[in-house]
Amino acid sequence: MFRFTITHKAKNCPARTGVIETNHGFIETPAFVAVASSASVKTLSPQEITKSGTQIFFINTFHLHLRPGENIIKKFGGIHKFINWDGPIISDSGGFQIFSLSRDKEKNLVKIYEDHVELRSPWDGSKHFLTPQKSISIQKSLGADIIICLDDCTPYPVQYKTAKISLERTHRWAILSLEAYKKQKSTQALYGVVQGSVFESLRKKSAKFISSLPFCGIAIGGVSVGESKEQMKKVLEWVIPLLPENKPRHLLGVGEIDDIFTLVQKGVDTFDCVMPTRLGRMGHILIKEYKSKKFSYDITKIPYATDKRPLDPLCKCWVCKKFSRGYINHLFRTKELLGYRLATYHNLYFVNSLVKKIREAIKGDRLEKLKEEWLGEE
Amino acid sequence: MFRFTITHKAKNCPARTGVIETNHGFIETPAFVAVASSASVKTLSPQEITKSGTQIFFINTFHLHLRPGENIIKKFGGIHKFINWDGPIISDSGGFQIFSLSRDKEKNLVKIYEDHVELRSPWDGSKHFLTPQKSISIQKSLGADIIICLDDCTPYPVQYKTAKISLERTHRWAILSLEAYKKQKSTQALYGVVQGSVFESLRKKSAKFISSLPFCGIAIGGVSVGESKEQMKKVLEWVIPLLPENKPRHLLGVGEIDDIFTLVQKGVDTFDCVMPTRLGRMGHILIKEYKSKKFSYDITKIPYATDKRPLDPLCKCWVCKKFSRGYINHLFRTKELLGYRLATYHNLYFVNSLVKKIREAIKGDRLEKLKEEWLGEE
Repeated sequence: MFRFTITHKAKNCPARTGVIETNHGFIETPAFVAVASSASVKTLSPQEITKSGTQIFFINTFHLHLRPGENIIKKFGGIHKFINWDGPIISDSGGFQIFSLSRDKEKNLVKIYEDHVELRSPWDGSKHFLTPQKSISIQKSLGADIIICLDDCTPYPVQYKTAKISLERTHRWAILSLEAYKKQKSTQALYGVVQGSVFESLRKKSAKFISSLPFCGIAIGGVSVGESKEQMKKVLEWVIPLLPENKPRHLLGVGEIDDIFTLVQKGVDTFDCVMPTRLGRMGHILIKEYKSKKFSYDITKIPYATDKRPLDPLCKCWVCKKFSRGYINHLFRTKELLGYRLATYHNLYFVNSLVKKIREAIKGDRLEKLKEEWLGEE
Repeated sequence: MFRFTITHKAKNCPARTGVIETNHGFIETPAFVAVASSASVKTLSPQEITKSGTQIFFINTFHLHLRPGENIIKKFGGIHKFINWDGPIISDSGGFQIFSLSRDKEKNLVKIYEDHVELRSPWDGSKHFLTPQKSISIQKSLGADIIICLDDCTPYPVQYKTAKISLERTHRWAILSLEAYKKQKSTQALYGVVQGSVFESLRKKSAKFISSLPFCGIAIGGVSVGESKEQMKKVLEWVIPLLPENKPRHLLGVGEIDDIFTLVQKGVDTFDCVMPTRLGRMGHILIKEYKSKKFSYDITKIPYATDKRPLDPLCKCWVCKKFSRGYINHLFRTKELLGYRLATYHNLYFVNSLVKKIREAIKGDRLEKLKEEWLGEE
């Protein structure tokens, strides 16, 4: 089961609202996708994930292949039953781990060959192989509602020639992934991945090529690996007009507060980012324009010790209703795990609330106004 | 507001049920007291503390004096508002920290003088003084419902002579504490502390002396610092018959599963122990007689990775309803914070459920039978 319905189109930009229907329910788009690399949105229970307004989260194929292993998750009846979460889940392909593990040149954890990738576990050094077919097979065992083709995430900065070779690999792998997927007759929805680094010709070529294949949706990769926000904007301007309108578009690994407005305005439907959860565990609390257009503050700082206000006086989340900055400051300073939890919950709720406001603004044709309210005039 | 009402007395032993009424509600006794040293029952929200069946928890005077400081908590309107917990809270005196910090001979963190104790912070080495009067004053600022006299917790093993000197100090401090408490005209309930190590004459002397003073309740200290379970039993047999029947009796720092039956049978009303929460964070899951009279198992062990059963198939807690051993094993093996939380919750629920069963058994005059069901025949 996979269906994407556009419910409203903005008048002055490619932004749109829609509904993605999956094997485990609906996602109203634009939607923020939380990250649960090791099958846990860190610190939160599945019930709290729902309460925070999160509609869908990412699980990490390579991480779960290593621990606990896809066969174990399959034995439990798949990832939904393993986690006890009945909503939509998306799994990545392992492509981003190939990229991120390969950045550690000293440890030499990754070797990319034409037909496969050799990776070493960062935990125990054990050797693992990944191919496009194997990624599809692992993702089938995990059982997420949306799965993604293995791609070669091009590093940045990069020469045109290297980016071209990398892109060709991504495209060959896309075909191999599709073939493996077809053989499985899975009810999962497969997304292809557009790459091409910061080169207009490569990005456009990739957008056309991936669009020509029978994917259920299109992911745009490689814009979170070092490019500037300006470059991300350009990539979206090159790519999105070439994508089929009726397929959902996912932007991989992007989601700072200002990015969200940009990517939605350019026509992205879903996007994932570790920012709200990771910042939360570091004690960085999301808030609207707190002190001149900064969207977070550090709750661990001494002045907050005596601050009786909630984390965000405008927020309606459970944490902001129940606890003071002073108490949460104390929890962070004494390294109490409850602190990480409360900050994570608020941050997720904050981002999901913003994206909900964005959906409403698109429907009411006032996205520009909402953006100005949050980011000021450009 | 402080009142203790005995609701039922066992026929064959000094066990009894009762209700302690405090400024923040009732405690049905016998009751387990959870530990929230730094103003957090580690990993859990106040709502979950209630749901786990916990009626009351301990906060730590010395820890909170150092971080965030009692004056900050006072500014928030006291510990209940600071934590956002509306139920009963008990604070210790700092006596146990004097004892536990002094065990680290190398760091030399504690110096005990006749009229005061000098302690160094284990976090930053800063110097702090504690006197009986100052402990009462800090506990007033914290605002717990029940507070405790500063005592000199005698180390073990110990010579009679040293234990006697230590006990005399505890008794002098008890009088100084009472005087300070009276001056404050506080509505908090003050408990005195019986010490005397493993010496019958000292324990009896202490029981009589502390009973002669106008305390609201009596705490029994020093039985968790190295003595055997047999010695604990003896101490309770010496002390409890000498205590006034109409005052609640708290046993400090004891609460292993088999201890609970012993202490209740000997006439203890409340008792605190870090065991369920600390074991939980280590992955040790409480369960009834799992593999021949062991009351816990290690969820991190490999065989549990594929175990679809709940942590405890007989348990009705939220965690056991929702999650499998396999998932919780995975959370521990990947160090996901949710794992510590789920194990902590189950363990607290488990102990509170057992103590509830014990209350019911006392009322139904079948405590012996319940004990046999759990521990086997003696």
